[in-house]
Amino acid sequence: MSSGKPAVRLALLGCGTVGSEVVRLLHDQAEDLTARIGAPLELVGIAVRRLGRERGSLPVDPALFTTDALGLVKRDDVDVVIEVVGGIEPARSWLTEALRAGKSVVTANKALLAEDGATLHDAAAEGGADLYYEASVAGAIPLLRPLRESLHGDRVTRVTGIVNGTTNFILSSMDATGAGFGEALDEATELGYAEADPTADVEGFDAAAKAAILASLAFHTRVTAADVFREGMTGVTAADMASAKEMGCTIKLLCLAERGEDSSGQESVSVRVHPAMIPRSHPLASVGDAFNAVFVEAEAAGQLMFYGRGAGGTPTASAVLGDIVAAARNRLSGTRAPSESAYAHLPIRPIGEAVTRYHISLDVADRQGVLATVAGVFAQHEVSIATVRQSGRDEDATLVIVTHGAPDANLAATVEDLRELSIVRSIASVLRVEGSPA
Amino acid sequence: MSSGKPAVRLALLGCGTVGSEVVRLLHDQAEDLTARIGAPLELVGIAVRRLGRERGSLPVDPALFTTDALGLVKRDDVDVVIEVVGGIEPARSWLTEALRAGKSVVTANKALLAEDGATLHDAAAEGGADLYYEASVAGAIPLLRPLRESLHGDRVTRVTGIVNGTTNFILSSMDATGAGFGEALDEATELGYAEADPTADVEGFDAAAKAAILASLAFHTRVTAADVFREGMTGVTAADMASAKEMGCTIKLLCLAERGEDSSGQESVSVRVHPAMIPRSHPLASVGDAFNAVFVEAEAAGQLMFYGRGAGGTPTASAVLGDIVAAARNRLSGTRAPSESAYAHLPIRPIGEAVTRYHISLDVADRQGVLATVAGVFAQHEVSIATVRQSGRDEDATLVIVTHGAPDANLAATVEDLRELSIVRSIASVLRVEGSPA
Repeated sequence: MSSGKPAVRLALLGCGTVGSEVVRLLHDQAEDLTARIGAPLELVGIAVRRLGRERGSLPVDPALFTTDALGLVKRDDVDVVIEVVGGIEPARSWLTEALRAGKSVVTANKALLAEDGATLHDAAAEGGADLYYEASVAGAIPLLRPLRESLHGDRVTRVTGIVNGTTNFILSSMDATGAGFGEALDEATELGYAEADPTADVEGFDAAAKAAILASLAFHTRVTAADVFREGMTGVTAADMASAKEMGCTIKLLCLAERGEDSSGQESVSVRVHPAMIPRSHPLASVGDAFNAVFVEAEAAGQLMFYGRGAGGTPTASAVLGDIVAAARNRLSGTRAPSESAYAHLPIRPIGEAVTRYHISLDVADRQGVLATVAGVFAQHEVSIATVRQSGRDEDATLVIVTHGAPDANLAATVEDLRELSIVRSIASVLRVEGSPA
Repeated sequence: MSSGKPAVRLALLGCGTVGSEVVRLLHDQAEDLTARIGAPLELVGIAVRRLGRERGSLPVDPALFTTDALGLVKRDDVDVVIEVVGGIEPARSWLTEALRAGKSVVTANKALLAEDGATLHDAAAEGGADLYYEASVAGAIPLLRPLRESLHGDRVTRVTGIVNGTTNFILSSMDATGAGFGEALDEATELGYAEADPTADVEGFDAAAKAAILASLAFHTRVTAADVFREGMTGVTAADMASAKEMGCTIKLLCLAERGEDSSGQESVSVRVHPAMIPRSHPLASVGDAFNAVFVEAEAAGQLMFYGRGAGGTPTASAVLGDIVAAARNRLSGTRAPSESAYAHLPIRPIGEAVTRYHISLDVADRQGVLATVAGVFAQHEVSIATVRQSGRDEDATLVIVTHGAPDANLAATVEDLRELSIVRSIASVLRVEGSPA
């Protein structure tokens, strides 16, 4: 299928799991891609850390490989730079160089976008270049383009997502089998769902980067990873999960980005990552295994959900390819995608001011007046109690309390004061609660 | 927030449920829209059938209303025409006029796009104009933009959707309460989910139009409503639903668009709308009430699902506004959205050649050899049986048979032959089966 038009020339930075799949798809789908774009795509170079590794199975001329990434980016005959290396440097230098020179960039680099997206967006504006990063959040799920374009006539109020497959696999497994965190992590590692060092996943760093990217797009405000409150899920126990089940809930590691007003009416944004109990009837509760899903609430659109594979070489490559097609089309027609929209400049609300709900499980002495004393502590911090369940157990009893929404600082202070009470033997579990049944 | 740039001028055709919401959102979100677009939007005229109806609550100058839609479309000072009237004519004439004159069009008109999208796309190409129609399928759910752009580096193999809220409400209610179709329809009508004349919904015409639009985008092939096999859901009985439940399934009115090969290896597309049993563990099974959801399978991306409100003035207006923002941005930057992609020209496979599975429930005489006779009929038509359940009942018995995939014509012929057998007292139910558990 010859279109007659000159090829759009691509430079690929990185050829690991995702990069290899990009190469394979560019080859396998060449005819369709040419038809959809109106011109062929031509891979003119692939930057790798070391030459000579086994890449024999890739359908590509071995002469294309180079270790000089910056040299490749600077080549005059490159139109689109695709970065699937990850990390802050040297990726930032390469992409800034490309964008300033007017080259389109397609990247899957969530860490860089969350840490210093501003530098990339500014470079894109300076060079009049396209910056696409659909693959940086939720892999194959077309999520950023809808947020960046489809919902631009609406007002997004909240984004709630399961955006880390590793931790979702672990929590789904704890929910299904009653296993503890350690056991479920071992299973995930064996099955290849968790890396040898799972810190970035289980401590919520990966989800926090994605939360920053989603919040930036949803609220037209620059949000960085440093703005995101982050609490990992290593503290979630089998007992927590059992307690959640008793309440008709499950526990998920959520990323949340919410628009809200403080007491003075100032609009602000709360962005956070933490484990939370959600009702089993919430659409996110049934997202199992390593799947991702993002629930978006907007004033006019109502509730939307996007669901799919959040990781893996092939699904991520699908998102990269979609961006390559868009960037290539724009180059051919001499146009640009909508640039960064960050006009709203909403302030970030600290976690203490974020309105959350708590589920608190206490072991208390089974004596007259215990509930009154405990309830008094909540009242003192202006935290309203939604439900209490009390169950006796020899001379001790368990109190399970779920609060109404209150500033997180008040809830945290309530827990601290409860810890000081002599009638409280121990605080068995504290978990945030999110989501109404839908 | 003044951008200094001249306004993008909008003409609105239709001011019913959706149109009123478009007017309201344009007013309420004016500041944000201006910031996102880089210029203000200005509504310069609203065409209605009759003047003087109560529209007092709309935040708009009454002088903007006119009954001369064509005159409004032709005005030199109109940049973007928004059509929310519906129906084939006069909408087609208006939009063709607008597109040929280079005006951008945003429409929610599924009937027109499905019946004669070619005329609109051709007019858009002729005038170098944008044609956006996100609101035509699945209301607020950003679905067409992902299909039209995000998945363009991938190969979509199947689209399975619940795209009609009325019938989904009816079937969900039948599933929950055991009610029959008539009773559930009455409830839907009372609650405002079904129109006085529900034909377009319950007979699948609405879903078929949406199926044509989805198939066109997914397979880069012009598909019209006439290409879609359509079977309504009025024949689904309480007994069918009970039978589905026994099998761990529910019944949904599905729109399906599948890529496949015939026996000669020729690639083709099957597009159809019919009720079908799906396993309760399939993500579409839990889509309740009047919600819509579309499940997309692609070679690289894997399984994706999009979920949200498929109808209603406000959700539909959200989709229309998103398109208006995109069209306005393009006008300001002098660019165009990707135009129609219909290069693949895949042939449409007739329903008889579509590979489906059947669930057949038979009342038979409880005699030796009945199963052998019945099984012989399936074998004769080269239909392979997946499961048989036989349950005795006095001197009659019930046979419930689920087949493996086979050409629909063979399955239909099998049912016809079964009807002729003297040992078959009646065929209690025949339903197609779709979807593997996910």
